[in-house]
Amino acid sequence: MKNSKNRKFTCKGINNALAILESNRFNIISIDTLIDGRADRDPRLKNLIDNHLVSQFSKDQFYKKHNESRTQGIIVEFSGKLIENRLPDFKNKSNVCLLALDQIEDPQNFGQIIRTADCAGINGILFPQHHSVPITQTVLQVSQGAFVNMPLYQLTNLSQGFEQLKKNDFWIVGLENSIDAKPWYKIDYGGKIVIVVGSEGKGLRQKTMKKCDFKATIPMKGKINSLNVSAAVSAILFERQRQLNKD
Amino acid sequence: MKNSKNRKFTCKGINNALAILESNRFNIISIDTLIDGRADRDPRLKNLIDNHLVSQFSKDQFYKKHNESRTQGIIVEFSGKLIENRLPDFKNKSNVCLLALDQIEDPQNFGQIIRTADCAGINGILFPQHHSVPITQTVLQVSQGAFVNMPLYQLTNLSQGFEQLKKNDFWIVGLENSIDAKPWYKIDYGGKIVIVVGSEGKGLRQKTMKKCDFKATIPMKGKINSLNVSAAVSAILFERQRQLNKD
Repeated sequence: MKNSKNRKFTCKGINNALAILESNRFNIISIDTLIDGRADRDPRLKNLIDNHLVSQFSKDQFYKKHNESRTQGIIVEFSGKLIENRLPDFKNKSNVCLLALDQIEDPQNFGQIIRTADCAGINGILFPQHHSVPITQTVLQVSQGAFVNMPLYQLTNLSQGFEQLKKNDFWIVGLENSIDAKPWYKIDYGGKIVIVVGSEGKGLRQKTMKKCDFKATIPMKGKINSLNVSAAVSAILFERQRQLNKD
Repeated sequence: MKNSKNRKFTCKGINNALAILESNRFNIISIDTLIDGRADRDPRLKNLIDNHLVSQFSKDQFYKKHNESRTQGIIVEFSGKLIENRLPDFKNKSNVCLLALDQIEDPQNFGQIIRTADCAGINGILFPQHHSVPITQTVLQVSQGAFVNMPLYQLTNLSQGFEQLKKNDFWIVGLENSIDAKPWYKIDYGGKIVIVVGSEGKGLRQKTMKKCDFKATIPMKGKINSLNVSAAVSAILFERQRQLNKD
């Protein structure tokens, strides 16, 4: 299975390294650092790194081994469990917000969405096993370490997941530019909510739309009429934060 | 000069091609299409393309010439003026919102911000000549054609631009996580406003901060504490839209 514990990943950069090492969740295979690079000088990393086998490289050696830009002088190789295949029981929780991605195809967008979801206090991300970009190295990289603490639920069937959540008193809000959609800020995001966004270009599938209790739209005010899905997610998640914190 | 009329750019994809061709603003050098590709089958492009010299390619030929992914079967080469070096007179306008980028370094972010700014009804983007990513091919590509209709003001001195705008009754709002900043939704974005965002990681420069009449912050609710600048821009620009449209 692709996402088993034995799959190896490589992540670069200080944010990713900090998140991976602080979590204690992963098996650290190797840590390569650039002598006197940004990571090498970062006091937050020092203690975390000291417990592991670190290989230090000169500039020439480092970039010979890693043909990568924006490493900030650190590359961590690790393995471990990145996803869950089952939703937990949310029965006794309140103010839970999950995000569901209905067939997102672009790993950049997926990574950005995980990062934004962390910053906006989201409790987990649902995505389907098929017709969706899986958790690739790019997804992890772009998330800037947010993948470590964000529960990622890869479900065989998204609609069945929605049914289960509805039994746990969740409302499903779909972001879709349909005739019966309300402006995104007229939806109440309190309580238990799933916010569903569709694929770049195609939007939500019909069968996903049928599960939605509410539909939200972000009216376009420009000429190109095409908001990136991760920008749309940011607008809607921080509107939820505004509602939760406004008083 | 880098941004003179003679500089050539290449853009791929249907959105970019539509925006460039519809604008009638540019000198179209060449249009390459893939026979029976997505662009070839798009009725919106048909009439626009017909007025130009189009070269049609088979799949093999097309990808031999263009070593690119996500072309949607169309690549347009063009030249023309992309930026302005002076701010216009906004004296007799109301409800104008400009976005200022204080030393953004990543072309992906710059492109995304142009795209989001278009969708959120922004009237122009200011950026400094130095210590900022210039308008590169990546910036244009990521903007998905939004660069065509968004005024892009590249100023020698951003602070002087702010002074000029203040004389035209603009308020300057800086997005900065400082002690005297208010939550982003407690700022009034009506009237004439400049929203200033800083570079990835470093935030606003001191001298930029001094020009700000208000400071806004987006409190972080997660573990990684690092919102992408284009995601922050989306949250703040759509909060403005909410305020303008809420009644």
